[in-house]
Order: sequence, then structure tokens, then C-alpha cells
Amino acid sequence: MSDPKAQAARELPPPAFQDFVSEAPFPLELGGELPGLTLRYETYGTLLPDASNAILVAHALSGDHHVAGKYAPDDRKPGWWDHYVGPGKAVDTDRFFVIGMNCLGGCRGSTGPLSVDPRTGAPYGGFFPEITLGDIVRAQRLLVRHLGVSWLHAVVGGSMGGMQALLWCADYPAEVGRIGVLAAGLSQSPMAIALNTVSRACVERDPGYRGGHYLPGEGPSSGLAVGRMLAHISYLSSAAFDQKFGRAVVPGSRPGDPVRWQVESYLEHQGASFVRRFDANSWLRITRAVDRFDLTARAAAGTLFKADGPELLAVGFSSDWLYPTSELRMLMAAAAAAGVNAAYHEVVTDAGHDGFLLPDKGLSVRLNAFLG
Amino acid sequence: MSDPKAQAARELPPPAFQDFVSEAPFPLELGGELPGLTLRYETYGTLLPDASNAILVAHALSGDHHVAGKYAPDDRKPGWWDHYVGPGKAVDTDRFFVIGMNCLGGCRGSTGPLSVDPRTGAPYGGFFPEITLGDIVRAQRLLVRHLGVSWLHAVVGGSMGGMQALLWCADYPAEVGRIGVLAAGLSQSPMAIALNTVSRACVERDPGYRGGHYLPGEGPSSGLAVGRMLAHISYLSSAAFDQKFGRAVVPGSRPGDPVRWQVESYLEHQGASFVRRFDANSWLRITRAVDRFDLTARAAAGTLFKADGPELLAVGFSSDWLYPTSELRMLMAAAAAAGVNAAYHEVVTDAGHDGFLLPDKGLSVRLNAFLG
Repeated sequence: MSDPKAQAARELPPPAFQDFVSEAPFPLELGGELPGLTLRYETYGTLLPDASNAILVAHALSGDHHVAGKYAPDDRKPGWWDHYVGPGKAVDTDRFFVIGMNCLGGCRGSTGPLSVDPRTGAPYGGFFPEITLGDIVRAQRLLVRHLGVSWLHAVVGGSMGGMQALLWCADYPAEVGRIGVLAAGLSQSPMAIALNTVSRACVERDPGYRGGHYLPGEGPSSGLAVGRMLAHISYLSSAAFDQKFGRAVVPGSRPGDPVRWQVESYLEHQGASFVRRFDANSWLRITRAVDRFDLTARAAAGTLFKADGPELLAVGFSSDWLYPTSELRMLMAAAAAAGVNAAYHEVVTDAGHDGFLLPDKGLSVRLNAFLG
Repeated sequence: MSDPKAQAARELPPPAFQDFVSEAPFPLELGGELPGLTLRYETYGTLLPDASNAILVAHALSGDHHVAGKYAPDDRKPGWWDHYVGPGKAVDTDRFFVIGMNCLGGCRGSTGPLSVDPRTGAPYGGFFPEITLGDIVRAQRLLVRHLGVSWLHAVVGGSMGGMQALLWCADYPAEVGRIGVLAAGLSQSPMAIALNTVSRACVERDPGYRGGHYLPGEGPSSGLAVGRMLAHISYLSSAAFDQKFGRAVVPGSRPGDPVRWQVESYLEHQGASFVRRFDANSWLRITRAVDRFDLTARAAAGTLFKADGPELLAVGFSSDWLYPTSELRMLMAAAAAAGVNAAYHEVVTDAGHDGFLLPDKGLSVRLNAFLG
């Protein structure tokens, strides 16, 4: 770190996203099909000639294909998991070929409600079908195969990304060496469903929603912003709120005016900036897909984990109340019952659910060792 | 309990609310004044000639003056704390004269945004001023004095009601013998503020809100319903959601339709029924008053608790994440530092914050003993 040149040499070269287009009809788990799909992705590092070093990093609800690096040196932020993905980092791009992709149903380049339906020539919008995380994973597999990879060294992800890693384990156990599941459990809990339900109600009750059939720029921006404000609360912890904001107020109001709280201003900013980068129909489709996620029956039936299936690293975050560590422990119990090679790591943090996005030395070391 | 007649004889006689009208101007803590006020109240039991047996039971956010009993035998529900208030119950109406009143700023009969401003002849609506819990307590004191009581045997309440009990202790320590504080702490936490902030945003962004200047029946009913749905989540616990709803779905939807969850249906019902009994401007005023609540500085300065002030019973509920038991423990630490006669009782429950509204044998016994 003392030699800026050496450090610069350790940075990722600027990534560039690409689009994979599949023109084959894509059947959906809940019925119907998409006439084809586009998947936007980025890769980091080099695929070995035998294609044995590929790692898929699956994003959470509002993430995308841009996992690491900066497109340009003056980008304000790098990719969403740059703390863990890069040369010499936990997911070491000197050794691994890392794939990031925007999920099916998303709004950052992959086929989703904003995409044009080739059958009509108009965007899907409110007509975009219901999808599942199983569909999202099946679409990922199309891209992985397109890249010449028939076996993944690992699938790693946090939150919804962790659920996808579990689905790779459930649906394609012979095609994955190991899964890293951070801040997720065997199913979406009833309270997490309740929170998503209210977040969706904010969108659906915005007069701009129009059953999903809104025009670009005329959508339910206010409802989506408030829905995101609510979701954002669930990503933090009480201790994080204490530390970040306390009871601080935005200066300038008169005594008889309503108080404007710093935390209020922060959440409003988060809501407003989310609206600029996310589509309401995508938010509805993806949160509904997450709510449907439930592998408890498969875990109980012995068809999720198998002794000769992928190894597991489960990572819990001590102050996460959206996907609490108790859910990771249930995951471990199911893996242990099946004789899977599994390990649990707990990050002690006040950051709440969002902890999986933040740098943590212990997690880096553990994840790096797990990936071998 | 084996003799229905004897049991019937132990029921409260049907209560009847009354209105106390004060025509004196009522100055407000944040500036300005109300030209007068009406306070709707109920009483249970009989005041002793020396007026020494009065207990004030303060309600939470959405409660009211109807604390116990049924107005008519076929009422669907009794008052909101009937489990604890009545003949032979924890707050024993055979011995105590119990006062319940709708808080200032409320919408159940006491002066609030729905009331007519005598200066204009029109409802206050969006012009109703900002109030504090200190104002609410000062209005309570007017009524208490009107009833001939200059010293309260106790003030008891849960959640916002507990905050009011603490304010009686802070502001009128010589006029209260003991305070029972359930499911509340020394201040509104930043995360609780965050939740209220989003709940208010739901209301304020409803086009029907019009800055609070809506006509009866044309208010922000959708936003208020969603805001209440969110609040309701914070009153329960993850375990309660598991037990009450699990991942059950409302039957009848086709596979490709969005799932309608039982928990979603329940929350929507809660939201819709709340709109029928609550006013949006009241919701904003009262939640903002709660958010302003902060006695930490006074506790630190030694002006909240005093050794010769009211005794304290603090009651925490193990699964309450809105006002977690850690906040009750901080309350106890502050009381202990001041030499107050104080005791802590914890109810082990999966019910979350709403636990203080539910029957609990241990709490009944403890509260009864505390009231002496």
C-alpha cells in the first residue's frame, strides 16, 4: 500500500458490459414464456483454457452486472462488491474468471419490464410476466454456458444473491463446486414478506402506477421512493441508525414547524436516487420472486443438499434482522443433516443486512480460503 | 369462575364517556395556543372522598378513552386494556378510580385536527398546530384536576402511554405516587423515528392529503392505510409473523398471478379498518409528538428521576424490537442512579411490541402488586 504504482497495478482494468442475446423462447416456471432474452453482464479476470475457474457473483434486489472496478477513473463508485472482487481480493480476479450479470426481470440491461416485447414492438411494462428466482438462475445458466463454462467453481451472493446460490445447489448440483450464501436463509420469512408487501403497496397505490401500464417518466416515482425508504430501513439495524443519525435534525426549521430529521432526509435521498436507477415494475416482479423463494420442503426432502453436491459457506451478519443469523443456522443444520461439507462464518457488525456489502477483513479471509 | 352470576357481577358496569370542556386558552410547548379544548374521558370505579385512589391510564398511538368494559353486552370488543382494568383485575376498579382519556391531538372526541376551531368556525384540519407529549400530559392534568384529583396514585401506560407516564414523573413529580412504564424508553429511537418518517411519507404523498387540507371523506385514506400497515409490522415480531401467518397464501389465484399472501391480506385489513377510525392529520401530529420525545438529557441532568419522586415499574417485552428491552434497562439504570424505588419486569413473549395489549398472568400479578 506504500507504493501507489504497485497499488494502481493491482486495480481492475476498467470493465465493460456486454449483452448476450438468446433468441430461443425461454419458458417460465409459473407458465408462459419469453420469446427470447437479453442478459447484460460483465466479466473480470481470465477464463482458463479448461474453463475451470469461473465464479458467478449474483446480485441482490437492487444490484446489477457491475460487480467490481470503475468504468472510468473518476467514477464516483466502483461496482457494488468491489470490496471483495478484484486482483488479490477475496474473490481473486488474478486467479478466477468472475461473472456478474443483471438478473432476468431487472432494469439494468437484461430483459425485464422496460424491454421491448418483440411480439408487440412495445415495452412489456405491466405485461411482463411473473418470474421466480428459479427463472433467474436458469437464465444465468444460459449465459454461463454461452461463455463456455459448463461447471462453475463457485456461485456466491448476498441476500437475493445468496438465494440464487442455493438454487444453483438445488437445481444444478453437478455444475457448481461450492456456494457462498451471505445474509439469506432457506426461505423468505413471513416478516420479510410483510415488509415487501407494504413496499409494493406504496408502488401499487401511487396513481402513476396504472396497473403497471405507465409511460416512461410518468411512473409511480413517489410510491417507489417511499417503498424503497421502507426497504432501506430493513437493510440497517437499530444500532446503525443510532450511530449514523442519532436524533439529529436538519437545521433551519422554526420551533412550531414539524421537525425534519436527518434520518428522514437520508431516507428521502435514498428513495429519490433509487427512482432514478430502478423501474417500478421490476421492483414488483423481483420482490415477488424473492417472496416466493422457499427451499424448506426441498431441504426436508433431502433434494437441496447432498453429500456429493457443492460445498457451502454460510455467512451471517450479527445485526441483520431481515435475514437473521438464526436463518443461516437453519441452513447449516439442513446442510449438516445431508452430510454436506459446510462451514458457518458470522460477521459481528452493527451494519445490519447491508453488512454483506461492506468491507470486512475477517469475511475476506474466510471467503478467500473457501474459494481455495 | 364456576358461577356465571358471580362472574357477571365482577364485570364493569357499562362505561359512558363524557366531555370536559375548558374554555381557557391552552398554550402549547412549541409556541402558539389553542383557544380552548375538549377532552373526552371515561372513568371506572369510585373516587374516594379524599381523592387518593385515582389512576390515570394513558393510551398508545391509536388508542382512546375507552380503556375497559363494554358499552353494550353485544359490543364486539371491550376497551383496549380490559385485560388489566376491571373489578379484581391488575388495575382493580373495586379499589381504584381509573381515568381514561383521548389524548390532545387525537380524533376520538378530544380536541384535535377534526375539531372545529372556534376562531374560524371550521375544523382545524391541516392548520392544527404541532404538539408535544408534554402538551398531551398538561391537558391530562387539566382533566385530572377537574375531576377533583390533585394527586394521582399512579400513571400507567404502554408505548406512547409509557412516555406520558415518564413525563408526569418529569414535570409533576409531587403529583404522582408511581408510574408504570410498559414498552417504552427514555426517548424515541432513531430507527423508530425512521419508521414513523416513512409512515408519514405514505400519508403526505397521497394526492388526497393536500397539505392536510382535505375534506371529510376525501382524505389520504390510501396513504394512511399503507402507513398503518407499515406501523403494524413494527408492533409484531418475526416469531409472531411465523406463528400467525407463516408463508400461507390466500387461495384462488392462478399460478402465473402474483401471490396474495395471508399476511398481506391481514395487513390490508388492518390498514383499511384503521382508516375508518383514525384521522390522517391526527396520525401525523401524534407520531411527530412521539418522535420528539426525548428525556435522555433530563435523565442525565438528574431532573427526571428523584429519590423522593414517583416509584417506577418498568416493563419490557422480550420480542419488542420497536422499544426493545435494552431501552427499558437504560430507563432502569437512570432510575437506579437517582435512587428511585424502581423495579423491572420482563414479559417473555413472541408478541412483540403489541405484547403490552395482550393478557399476561405474570404482568397482571406484578402490576397489581406495584399498585399496592
